Amino acid sequence: VTPPVVILVRPQLGENIGMVARAMWNFGLSELRLVSPRDGWPNPAAGPPAAGADIVLDSATVFDRLEDALADLHRVYATTVRKRGMMKEVVTAQEAARRIHALPGRAGLMFGPERSGLETDDVARADAILTVPVNPAFGSLNLSQAVILCACEWFQQADTSPPARLDGDLEGPATHGEVEGLIAALDEALTPAGYFYPEDRAPTMRRTLRNILERPGFTVQEVRTLRGVVRALKDKDKAIETKDLVDQILTK
Amino acid sequence: VTPPVVILVRPQLGENIGMVARAMWNFGLSELRLVSPRDGWPNPAAGPPAAGADIVLDSATVFDRLEDALADLHRVYATTVRKRGMMKEVVTAQEAARRIHALPGRAGLMFGPERSGLETDDVARADAILTVPVNPAFGSLNLSQAVILCACEWFQQADTSPPARLDGDLEGPATHGEVEGLIAALDEALTPAGYFYPEDRAPTMRRTLRNILERPGFTVQEVRTLRGVVRALKDKDKAIETKDLVDQILTK
Repeated sequence: VTPPVVILVRPQLGENIGMVARAMWNFGLSELRLVSPRDGWPNPAAGPPAAGADIVLDSATVFDRLEDALADLHRVYATTVRKRGMMKEVVTAQEAARRIHALPGRAGLMFGPERSGLETDDVARADAILTVPVNPAFGSLNLSQAVILCACEWFQQADTSPPARLDGDLEGPATHGEVEGLIAALDEALTPAGYFYPEDRAPTMRRTLRNILERPGFTVQEVRTLRGVVRALKDKDKAIETKDLVDQILTK
Repeated sequence: VTPPVVILVRPQLGENIGMVARAMWNFGLSELRLVSPRDGWPNPAAGPPAAGADIVLDSATVFDRLEDALADLHRVYATTVRKRGMMKEVVTAQEAARRIHALPGRAGLMFGPERSGLETDDVARADAILTVPVNPAFGSLNLSQAVILCACEWFQQADTSPPARLDGDLEGPATHGEVEGLIAALDEALTPAGYFYPEDRAPTMRRTLRNILERPGFTVQEVRTLRGVVRALKDKDKAIETKDLVDQILTK
């Protein structure tokens, strides 16, 4: 899949171009085109905010006319939050990302200047308008923020990460039998301590404990840790006696 | 629905705090909490990059300890791209947004310092880890970029925008009959011009034209414009004669 090209139309601040480069490369986009950048190109101010995304800055190309920057692209999306009074399809960033992945060709994402956004004539050159729904009371996105939202949507379309997974335990989840062993060990510690009292409430108390211990979906390692906790609490008096004994021997 | 709180843990640059405020308010998040900001608070450097999101900066609160900043929250997500070797659920930004919308309580999104990200002990205080899949070769997101991706996902969960719609035409889409009228007008102009030649290819040529004119899903206004174009081309000679006549009269 070919990533979309990012086209910045009359960008003003070099800092923003650098931040755009960083945002692009965070999500695997590397081709940047600049149409009439206000302060010329290359612009040293773009370097530091790019934070190492040199691959994007070094290969950026400059155009005088928007039509030349779009000439080899098959589909172009104009990003704008404002209504334009022109007959153009308006798509979400997610829908644009879906279409770009399905497109047998190259796509481009057009972004306007920081202060004013794209002109109506710029938008007219696009196949569709890409609009990110925002807080209607505060809709002005920073240029690199607009770029990263589109780039991230494109990247997510190809991403196969599960919505949720458990990380960090090489031994994996505990079986029902292992959790059962933990419940039995806790029960064995609590019974002589007089916890299950009064007798007629014991079944309910046992059920509540079972629900507490089943719900988290413990890992093997966590069950082992909790069995150690139960053992330590159960043998507390014994442990203190042992410790006293050791201390007595050591202080003698 | 209560928007999530954003918690910045030991943020370094005031500029970034300002950009975070702007990113938050772009997507309707207004409650910002700062844990031990390096340069104290308030920080004048945060003002300009907030670009008017004063509601967020003015109500920001400061905490010395992370646990105090989280005390009243029901669920907290720690954003980090790095594997931590700890047994914690890892969710996508989309999944976190879904859960926050479904939560009967307040949620928080934790972000670490610019350079180093969240410490392992910070992450341990969260209910789950939120990870945005990024380019593995260039995974370091700017702080405000990480915030805007999470804020946008939260906002999108509640957004009901259709993936695609046609904008800007008050008269709406043309009916099949109106498009049929356009096709007939074009046919009527092309037949005397000798366009449908040779005779045996005429049906195929007519079918191609029909496909071209049906596919775009024209609006009422666009059909009217195209009928005007056909009329102008058809009556071109007549128009030129009229123009010559007018010119002759005027120059006399």
